[in-house]
Amino acid sequence: MTLTLLQAQTIVTATLAEARSQGAKALAVIVLDAGAHPVAFAREDGASLYRFDIARAKAEGAVGMDADTAVLAERAKGNPVFFHSVSAAVGGGIAFSPGGVVIRDANGALIGAVGVSGDTGECDADCALAGIRAAGLVEETEA
Amino acid sequence: MTLTLLQAQTIVTATLAEARSQGAKALAVIVLDAGAHPVAFAREDGASLYRFDIARAKAEGAVGMDADTAVLAERAKGNPVFFHSVSAAVGGGIAFSPGGVVIRDANGALIGAVGVSGDTGECDADCALAGIRAAGLVEETEA
Amino acid sequence: MTLTLLQAQTIVTATLAEARSQGAKALAVIVLDAGAHPVAFAREDGASLYRFDIARAKAEGAVGMDADTAVLAERAKGNPVFFHSVSAAVGGGIAFSPGGVVIRDANGALIGAVGVSGDTGECDADCALAGIRAAGLVEETEA
Amino acid sequence: MTLTLLQAQTIVTATLAEARSQGAKALAVIVLDAGAHPVAFAREDGASLYRFDIARAKAEGAVGMDADTAVLAERAKGNPVFFHSVSAAVGGGIAFSPGGVVIRDANGALIGAVGVSGDTGECDADCALAGIRAAGLVEETEA
Repeated sequence: MTLTLLQAQTIVTATLAEARSQGAKALAVIVLDAGAHPVAFAREDGASLYRFDIARAKAEGAVGMDADTAVLAERAKGNPVFFHSVSAAVGGGIAFSPGGVVIRDANGALIGAVGVSGDTGECDADCALAGIRAAGLVEETEA
Repeated sequence: MTLTLLQAQTIVTATLAEARSQGAKALAVIVLDAGAHPVAFAREDGASLYRFDIARAKAEGAVGMDADTAVLAERAKGNPVFFHSVSAAVGGGIAFSPGGVVIRDANGALIGAVGVSGDTGECDADCALAGIRAAGLVEETEA
Repeated sequence: MTLTLLQAQTIVTATLAEARSQGAKALAVIVLDAGAHPVAFAREDGASLYRFDIARAKAEGAVGMDADTAVLAERAKGNPVFFHSVSAAVGGGIAFSPGGVVIRDANGALIGAVGVSGDTGECDADCALAGIRAAGLVEETEA
Repeated sequence: MTLTLLQAQTIVTATLAEARSQGAKALAVIVLDAGAHPVAFAREDGASLYRFDIARAKAEGAVGMDADTAVLAERAKGNPVFFHSVSAAVGGGIAFSPGGVVIRDANGALIGAVGVSGDTGECDADCALAGIRAAGLVEETEA
């Protein structure tokens, strides 16, 4: 299964709707496909400039390692030297904070990732999860 | 005047609607603000992977030089050595083909740019112009 | 409101005047606009070569995250793994030391940032604040 | 002899004064020292964003090759393959258009370069030459 633009736009819309219902800070949200290439992106008014790069690095890290950045951030705390070297090896394409969430199809196959940045990592991840569910897709549930 | 997410999403939607009405190939479209930072992006199903980078480079070049890439592409034909060096100096952030279109407010101030890639440069630019007009904004008209 | 060259040059002049009145080490000072692009820069005689890059990274970080680097440096101490990854994700465009100070207009809108490097981070930041006030603009005051 | 900040700021001021007296388009002007590191910079209101990078690449190219970019641009037209490879080899730090002008002391020693971008290469170079003369320094005269 290939992630469609319609699905990606549904994820963006629902992620931002969740952010507004939670009173989150202004966010940026990106959806990448299984090759880590951008499908859809939006930056809310007032979100700072680096939100694009950070959201993208969260989503790239999730696709690149096939794991949510909430998991990767925990691993990185326990082994920072290795994960810093990973960050350098992949040209900065990974960010160690929740908000990068893997998207799976009904069979568990990786089809992309969402990256959200602007509020706390936990809030960013909550919004991403709401977005994925709204599109009828499956978020990462294992650790 | 600052370009809003709502305006940027309207531009994306209308650009892709124009593409579908013309039977264009699958496109990617990006909208940047006046500082050349991404506000909204969409890649249609079937558009190839480099469409994001090319659309972005068209839009960055338009904002960075304050001129449509249709104009820049003509200038580059007359002085390829200089424009190749510009491309290197700005880290690749310019693409010499139509489809990067400056967005102005009613007073003529630069507020961002649209970048479109996927079909011919002329078709890409036509779709971008339709998108800007649909948002009630002003495209570049001078040369 | 757009930051003008006159305002930026006033900030540079007043920042360096403050540095001389404090007997600070030789400094570099840069002023960026709201899109993080350079407007004015000066490096005092005797300031070392990397002062340009460090001052710029302080100012870019402040604009990019919409927060003074004094605040970002504190946050980075509490979560170094994440902020190292942010540094890589933004191509080095952030420096975790005081001296990157956001510039706001009277309505609180972000219009740019000053970056200063050469003495202690605290001294660098003091000089930047003096520069912003001399231009009749508003420094970041919240945390 | 080492280029001072005072000399560099005099060059910037006089370059922009010449630009205004000629009715030139909005310019950016940078002064680099003999190590190709920035000493002073200014971007006039309305100058587009890439003017910093292009002005810097002109000045870097002049210092890096110890020749004005007016000369380098001519050489590049006659041997584009080699000069494209130079551009890549130096990470984009050279631009093949007039406006990068070497600064010499009274003994002919290289002490820095000016880079100007915004109008035609010829106009840019004229303004840079006026700036260097106003500082009592010596422009490149040989080819």
